[in-house]
Amino acid sequence: MKRPYFPTQPGQPQPLRVTVSRVVRFEEVDPLGIVWHGRYPGYFEDARVTLGNRFGIGYMDLYRAEVITPIKKMHIDYHRPLCFEDPFTIEGILHWSEAARINIEFILRNGAGEVTTSGYTVQMMMDKENDFLLVAPPFYREFCDRWKSGQLV
Amino acid sequence: MKRPYFPTQPGQPQPLRVTVSRVVRFEEVDPLGIVWHGRYPGYFEDARVTLGNRFGIGYMDLYRAEVITPIKKMHIDYHRPLCFEDPFTIEGILHWSEAARINIEFILRNGAGEVTTSGYTVQMMMDKENDFLLVAPPFYREFCDRWKSGQLV
Amino acid sequence: MKRPYFPTQPGQPQPLRVTVSRVVRFEEVDPLGIVWHGRYPGYFEDARVTLGNRFGIGYMDLYRAEVITPIKKMHIDYHRPLCFEDPFTIEGILHWSEAARINIEFILRNGAGEVTTSGYTVQMMMDKENDFLLVAPPFYREFCDRWKSGQLV
Amino acid sequence: MKRPYFPTQPGQPQPLRVTVSRVVRFEEVDPLGIVWHGRYPGYFEDARVTLGNRFGIGYMDLYRAEVITPIKKMHIDYHRPLCFEDPFTIEGILHWSEAARINIEFILRNGAGEVTTSGYTVQMMMDKENDFLLVAPPFYREFCDRWKSGQLV
Repeated sequence: MKRPYFPTQPGQPQPLRVTVSRVVRFEEVDPLGIVWHGRYPGYFEDARVTLGNRFGIGYMDLYRAEVITPIKKMHIDYHRPLCFEDPFTIEGILHWSEAARINIEFILRNGAGEVTTSGYTVQMMMDKENDFLLVAPPFYREFCDRWKSGQLV
Repeated sequence: MKRPYFPTQPGQPQPLRVTVSRVVRFEEVDPLGIVWHGRYPGYFEDARVTLGNRFGIGYMDLYRAEVITPIKKMHIDYHRPLCFEDPFTIEGILHWSEAARINIEFILRNGAGEVTTSGYTVQMMMDKENDFLLVAPPFYREFCDRWKSGQLV
Repeated sequence: MKRPYFPTQPGQPQPLRVTVSRVVRFEEVDPLGIVWHGRYPGYFEDARVTLGNRFGIGYMDLYRAEVITPIKKMHIDYHRPLCFEDPFTIEGILHWSEAARINIEFILRNGAGEVTTSGYTVQMMMDKENDFLLVAPPFYREFCDRWKSGQLV
Repeated sequence: MKRPYFPTQPGQPQPLRVTVSRVVRFEEVDPLGIVWHGRYPGYFEDARVTLGNRFGIGYMDLYRAEVITPIKKMHIDYHRPLCFEDPFTIEGILHWSEAARINIEFILRNGAGEVTTSGYTVQMMMDKENDFLLVAPPFYREFCDRWKSGQLV
């Protein structure tokens, strides 16, 4: 991965990070003995959900604020395979955005610490009428304020 | 399969049948090269949905009648494996029931016509308050009337 | 569950048990907001794999012994739904069998300790030529000896 | 989609196209009532497999040539949602490449002909020792010759 998916601009808050540990399940493996490429969106989601719960911006928090955040873009780079029962970690990295969107980078590492997979998703914020929001809802802006002021790790 | 899953009682209407054709998809196959046993509930559902649409008792028909029909019981017998790109059929067989329940038998056959898998599901009918219905809703009783009078094939 | 799936005969060794903890993932939930009934085979497998690893009779142990153990029968009883982010446990209970088969019972419980789902799978042992084994392979019979002599918990 | 995923260079053969028809299955839909974003890799694969079979460069053809073609990159742009029972088409578009790789673009359209989703995958060719191939195997080069000479539609 030469170029960053989301280059950090000068003066922007540092990204927020969580790491989830997992083991490859039997049903995730394909006839070639490696995790089928289409399972990785689920792995990404494990980190996205953890990130959301850690910082109070999860599905349920958004749901209560009557905001939905559909995924508009997903990108995955496959570097190394994972096999049945392999332990691995999924790091979710929330990057700062000035717009009403959620940009998350994902890095998977195997038991040896090697990057096996990387990628990102971009989510837009929409209201109940399916209109895109130009500004994030109040609870999310407060989260951003805490982030900017360095209160979040 | 020696014993019938749902023995037909004397005087009961004959079961209603549909058959769906499918080909095994790559993501359904496990590291041993055969369809993972946990994919079959989805195959059963392909026939269940077709059965519902054919006879006007599908998810959406039930939804409009404010009835949900959760699955209470599922049983699967695995006779022969299926492999990647194998063509197969799924027969869905709706058996008559006097109660407010939906009993469907499933039979999968490979390209040679051999039974590879069989099983059944039992669904109960519930209203919006999640209470079990003792009698089926009007549109379903009308469907049963047509069935009993031999108007359905 | 009134009748036991696998009644214990007098003189048989007590079943072996493991319990796995899980949280419902977003992709497992259906449009009605509950775990789709077809995800439960995967939950069962989480306990089956753990059971295998705990007692040295896992996929890989069998694979090394050139034995495969396809699932011949699966049964699921759905008692209560599970929803997104619900924590739950999966208990896998290996029942004694005199034949070359693996009989496992599964019990899922929600955070309140209520049984949400129960069921079982039956696996047969086959050799590389896909012939059914009449007797279990040596490493499995040794496992059974340790089980019978009370060395396993 | 403003920029093409794989710009066609002057003098290159025109892309090869197939179109597959599908209906959204119940298990593909998430709690928000739309197809979960992680199901689309499977939809893409339906077109990839059809493309491979149509032109004799499918999984099995590659397998016989002792070549595997793991996916190295996948990108998905989500434009519009799909819902339960929505009919849709998946167009798979194989783009010419001078390298030993397989570049496929995917376009999904709903019943009204609107583009709901687009994206691409990049596959590398590897031999049995997991070394990347610098040149495609003979049967694939012959396929490319037929493509270049305009014998394929």
